[in-house]
Amino acid sequence: MTAKRTAFFISDGTGLTVEAIGHSLLAQFRDQHVEQVTLPYINTREKADLAVERISNAARDSGTRPILISSIVDPEIRAALRVSPAMMLDVFDSYLDPLAREFGSGPSQVVGTSHGIDFDARYNDRIDAVHFAMDNDDGRRTREFDQADIILLGVSRSGKTPTCLYLALQFGLRAANYPITEEDLDQISLPKILRPYRHKLFGLTIEPHRLMAIRQQRRANSRYASIDQCEFEVRQVEAMMRRASIPFLNATHLSIEELATQLMSQAGIERRVG
Amino acid sequence: MTAKRTAFFISDGTGLTVEAIGHSLLAQFRDQHVEQVTLPYINTREKADLAVERISNAARDSGTRPILISSIVDPEIRAALRVSPAMMLDVFDSYLDPLAREFGSGPSQVVGTSHGIDFDARYNDRIDAVHFAMDNDDGRRTREFDQADIILLGVSRSGKTPTCLYLALQFGLRAANYPITEEDLDQISLPKILRPYRHKLFGLTIEPHRLMAIRQQRRANSRYASIDQCEFEVRQVEAMMRRASIPFLNATHLSIEELATQLMSQAGIERRVG
Repeated sequence: MTAKRTAFFISDGTGLTVEAIGHSLLAQFRDQHVEQVTLPYINTREKADLAVERISNAARDSGTRPILISSIVDPEIRAALRVSPAMMLDVFDSYLDPLAREFGSGPSQVVGTSHGIDFDARYNDRIDAVHFAMDNDDGRRTREFDQADIILLGVSRSGKTPTCLYLALQFGLRAANYPITEEDLDQISLPKILRPYRHKLFGLTIEPHRLMAIRQQRRANSRYASIDQCEFEVRQVEAMMRRASIPFLNATHLSIEELATQLMSQAGIERRVG
Repeated sequence: MTAKRTAFFISDGTGLTVEAIGHSLLAQFRDQHVEQVTLPYINTREKADLAVERISNAARDSGTRPILISSIVDPEIRAALRVSPAMMLDVFDSYLDPLAREFGSGPSQVVGTSHGIDFDARYNDRIDAVHFAMDNDDGRRTREFDQADIILLGVSRSGKTPTCLYLALQFGLRAANYPITEEDLDQISLPKILRPYRHKLFGLTIEPHRLMAIRQQRRANSRYASIDQCEFEVRQVEAMMRRASIPFLNATHLSIEELATQLMSQAGIERRVG
């Protein structure tokens, strides 16, 4: 028997949103050690009953009341979950009534949000953007730079690739990236190939020690991963970006989501889908 | 002057979560035409005041009360937003007090959720998974299949690549994919290269007409994009997967998030990060 309390994040869809809410709420109670369990696609009475069973078991095994943070459109499924011994916080319970009063009309109880009339178009835009990011990764191709919404610059392993893919998947943006290598650093100005696209350029930089740690994982004890080399590259690239007035972000302490949203905000780029 | 009401999704972080909450709530009121605006990184008093100004302008211009759906940790910033003329629904307002009572301890008001002690480790896992997905995309490489958490199969343009990248970015999973091409379809059984990894295989299928539409965008009027070819490939691949007892999902009406989470649930794969 463990005394660890369980928090269940329950959704009739993917569970991604309610999980994010749960994480941000529980992050406010750092002294509590809470086991976190996501149960997605609880969209039938049968699945709700199974979830209640699981919640009841957690309550019994831990001797503490579970927390249930949920996002369930169907009021019957919400009601089925409410018989569990958990403390239940449901987004629809909390916000639908106030919104209905404000709008002066009842909710329509449509499960899922992404399947509106433009579902196929949104899907296509995201897929096209993903393939654009793959094709234009790591300076592999530059002839499509004129079609890019943004072109990320930075030293190898500064976070360009995942940021580009995230921009594509989440926002449908066409993001290319170009690694600044030692050859580029021999010259004092921006690589020639980038000059026509100056207005689309955005830099990522990173603290040399963090870069070293990332590169050591990839090629341990190489010159590439040495602190001298990392310091040299970062210093030179930052200088290059300053000279060319290219805006840049320091990626060291940012998640991929933060990098993507902060650079969109700084560069003034609007999403294409979402 | 337009009568369109505005909903603001306001966050002290990326805004992704509160935007998702807002979308799912407003999807319940399809008859309402609501302009949606996300304001991320409202994390100072000054930014909150600017947001209030923007909300006030929207109220004046439309002649309707704006909706404000927010996720703001700092009570002072919440209070600053509350002077706006909007109807305000804040996740922390709603849930922190009940949680604090339940835990018997006050919240710690830490802004942001992703920067715990394991931030660098989580970041590294996601980045490694992204590079794994890139390297093992489209059957480009198969010698790392033994390191994969999952290997997706399907015809060209059935959604394998974005799903693999999403699994990597969101869950840190190592997802490879292998396209079933016409050559593979000449034989009746699973391509030889895949046989040692049978337990990791998961298929995507798609309705032939939807596949045709996607392929037409890529290569209009080609045999590749013809309905005959699409029907042939889909039928053969589904038969192959059935014969080999490989589980599969129909991607036609699913978003990338849904594909990823449903296949994890069906294949019984746990996330590595998140």
